[in-house]
Amino acid sequence: MTDWMDRPLREIAQALREGNLTAEELAELSIARHEKWDGQLSAYKSWNSDFAREQATAADKSFRAGNDLGPLQGVSISVKDLYGVSGLPTFAGTPNRLPQQWEQEGPVIKAVRRQMAVIPGKAHTVEFAYGGIGANAHWGTPRNPWDADQHRVPGGSSAGAGVSLWEGSASFAFGTDTGGSVRIPASFTGCVGIKTTKSRWSTDGIVPLSSSFDTPGIIAKSMDDAVYAFEAVDPKSRHSGVKIEAKDISDVVLGVTKGYFWDRCQDDIAEIVENTVSKISAAGAKTVDTPLPEAEESLKTLAAGAIVAAEIYAFLEADLPKWIETLEPRVRARIEDGNKVSGTDYVRACNQAARLAAQADATLSTVDVLTVPTIPITPPTVEEVDDLDVYRSKNMPALSNTMPGNILGLSAVTLPVGLDKAGMPVGLQLISRSHQEENLLSTALAIDAALGPVSERIGSPPLGGSL
Amino acid sequence: MTDWMDRPLREIAQALREGNLTAEELAELSIARHEKWDGQLSAYKSWNSDFAREQATAADKSFRAGNDLGPLQGVSISVKDLYGVSGLPTFAGTPNRLPQQWEQEGPVIKAVRRQMAVIPGKAHTVEFAYGGIGANAHWGTPRNPWDADQHRVPGGSSAGAGVSLWEGSASFAFGTDTGGSVRIPASFTGCVGIKTTKSRWSTDGIVPLSSSFDTPGIIAKSMDDAVYAFEAVDPKSRHSGVKIEAKDISDVVLGVTKGYFWDRCQDDIAEIVENTVSKISAAGAKTVDTPLPEAEESLKTLAAGAIVAAEIYAFLEADLPKWIETLEPRVRARIEDGNKVSGTDYVRACNQAARLAAQADATLSTVDVLTVPTIPITPPTVEEVDDLDVYRSKNMPALSNTMPGNILGLSAVTLPVGLDKAGMPVGLQLISRSHQEENLLSTALAIDAALGPVSERIGSPPLGGSL
Repeated sequence: MTDWMDRPLREIAQALREGNLTAEELAELSIARHEKWDGQLSAYKSWNSDFAREQATAADKSFRAGNDLGPLQGVSISVKDLYGVSGLPTFAGTPNRLPQQWEQEGPVIKAVRRQMAVIPGKAHTVEFAYGGIGANAHWGTPRNPWDADQHRVPGGSSAGAGVSLWEGSASFAFGTDTGGSVRIPASFTGCVGIKTTKSRWSTDGIVPLSSSFDTPGIIAKSMDDAVYAFEAVDPKSRHSGVKIEAKDISDVVLGVTKGYFWDRCQDDIAEIVENTVSKISAAGAKTVDTPLPEAEESLKTLAAGAIVAAEIYAFLEADLPKWIETLEPRVRARIEDGNKVSGTDYVRACNQAARLAAQADATLSTVDVLTVPTIPITPPTVEEVDDLDVYRSKNMPALSNTMPGNILGLSAVTLPVGLDKAGMPVGLQLISRSHQEENLLSTALAIDAALGPVSERIGSPPLGGSL
Repeated sequence: MTDWMDRPLREIAQALREGNLTAEELAELSIARHEKWDGQLSAYKSWNSDFAREQATAADKSFRAGNDLGPLQGVSISVKDLYGVSGLPTFAGTPNRLPQQWEQEGPVIKAVRRQMAVIPGKAHTVEFAYGGIGANAHWGTPRNPWDADQHRVPGGSSAGAGVSLWEGSASFAFGTDTGGSVRIPASFTGCVGIKTTKSRWSTDGIVPLSSSFDTPGIIAKSMDDAVYAFEAVDPKSRHSGVKIEAKDISDVVLGVTKGYFWDRCQDDIAEIVENTVSKISAAGAKTVDTPLPEAEESLKTLAAGAIVAAEIYAFLEADLPKWIETLEPRVRARIEDGNKVSGTDYVRACNQAARLAAQADATLSTVDVLTVPTIPITPPTVEEVDDLDVYRSKNMPALSNTMPGNILGLSAVTLPVGLDKAGMPVGLQLISRSHQEENLLSTALAIDAALGPVSERIGSPPLGGSL
């Protein structure tokens, strides 16, 4: 049996406005779902039912007073435990609560709080968001709901995001994406993920990993939910009031590329993604061969300058020195690379990244989106990645197709397109030039429609769901 | 006797439009002035009379065809030899011509070329713009026209900018300001300088010194010329069409501060600047005590991260490795600091600079401008600064009051307010919060008016001038 938490966000918002549903009722469903599944799925680091109820009551009072505060009023949102939310502690995946300044809300959270959305808790993250697998030795790793037998990783670093949606305690989730941390958990859990262009959304009020590449983003169970949430949060959309709608599929130009994005790809995943692109093409989209050599080049550049490692190390040394001591080995080993790089190597890599970004942006201006597999591998089990070497061998391919988007300053969407041989979701990544989110999303809506219902593409996971 | 090259830019532009003056006549005056003074003043690295004549002829043809291409049509501009100008070589103060890509024009030069301004040559710069004194061992140091007896430095790094204006070969000059390189030569030569907020004007097409702090700017002989040029170049002003006019002096709020900006200041210079602020106050401006501890802090931060040195070193290593070998000792010694800093120290300093910038911006939101001496010392002689230790002992104070503006991301103006005991010009610096150039300039116009004619404040230099 389904309930309101399984319904499209637009229907929930309409029902709240029409009085067919109250925010309090919705919050009780969210709480009940969480209580049912938390033991198995463990999506959240912090959960506060009373806090959720308070927010829902306030949202209802406001509705009753005739105040419509925005499209997210009364809607339940899960927030990665990297964002400050006043009233909830911030751990950022570390063993110790961060100082109170990290509980201060930045523009993204303020935007949804002003609309009286309901935030029941903070979802798990990889320690300081530094990893793509989703594992956390301090607090445990959320369970990917798509495998009832084995505890497979949910993807990270926004590790609890997709899991919270299938649990049914939130209608969409905020993640952050520095190297793929929105797209990877979205893809591994069969969700839609939107990675925004750097600086389109402010990162104030979010514990930083990389000042160069951090971007806030959205994870949702459908393309339409994701677009609804995007429009409600995005300052430019809110200001313009222009609605993002699916473009005509015959107006869509898909970039297709060989080589790099496919090199590490499992055959079963490659086949699903290739068939998906054929299906979109058969529906009327044009395909254009679009080599993007900057993708592979960008990863070499990142490594040469240890850009992310240097930035997180410098931040921790200056702001949270005590948190360095308690880093889990899988995170520490990689962060310490940042303490070895020279200033000039770092600067040179940043300059080179900017050059590659300009080239990539020019290339992508000839298409709407480049279509590649979001992740070339099946989510591993938590047991496998306990070992540091196996962890590294899985973490790099998990990030390999998403990280170029960050280094090259692009925006991207992932959407679920099938299940691999292990029965785990496979994502199609749509990579767009920078600052063109409106076109990216209207293209993604067209592609999503061309692919038919998500339920037929991937169905639902064996874990999670209604009461 | 004066000629058109001594007249206000607005009058020149009007005469060109009304047919009382042709661009060709103006170019011939500019060329004659240059030929008269170049032997003594040496403002330019490259000069091309034929090129100037060609541009002037084209501007006249366009006027005759009834095409008004913009406020700078036919106006002569000197350009620091750091900007690419197609048709002129770029040396960037180094002994060898840079590869052709550095002759490509960026948005600032394109903006004036589209208006058919006339660029007769490229003015001298410190090697890679890395120094505030204005000295250049490869090509000689332009002579400050305010001392007929001794060869005093003109200030740098835009070393030829102010000199070219007094020579009378250009109506305004483009410089770049990374630590004071527009404001220092403006102040040392009795000119007005405008340092724009970082990223207000693109630095594309300009040889980089510091990707963090480089800003293009304007040097002119009067506040009104400077504002006229600013409006003609500034994308925002051109787009809005709103004219910048002097505000009522009684609406001006001056920040005044003790300590840091005065610590290194010669008594004669301090007295002139203090008297000037009193005069502005007597004319009706309000003064408010405005401590800015971030100024001193910002210099420590810069040094801790060797931000500029690391950025120029990384650029040279990647793009112009051969030019490292030929660096003059005074530049090389300081650039090599950049090769010693660690990536994390660099990043931490950048983060700290951003924090200080946010604090300073908040402080300055309570006033229109902070008033301080532009430079606390008299321009030294070229002989004195031949010695590396003396050079360092003069270069640091020359930059000490301007550099905080760059590190803190602010904008600023300098205007001439008197002559020191050596008979050299003294500048008053007006420091504004970021991205508020319109308010900064309308405030500066009001202050300029309150101080009376420049001719009475400083007169004219003994060198340079009409035929």
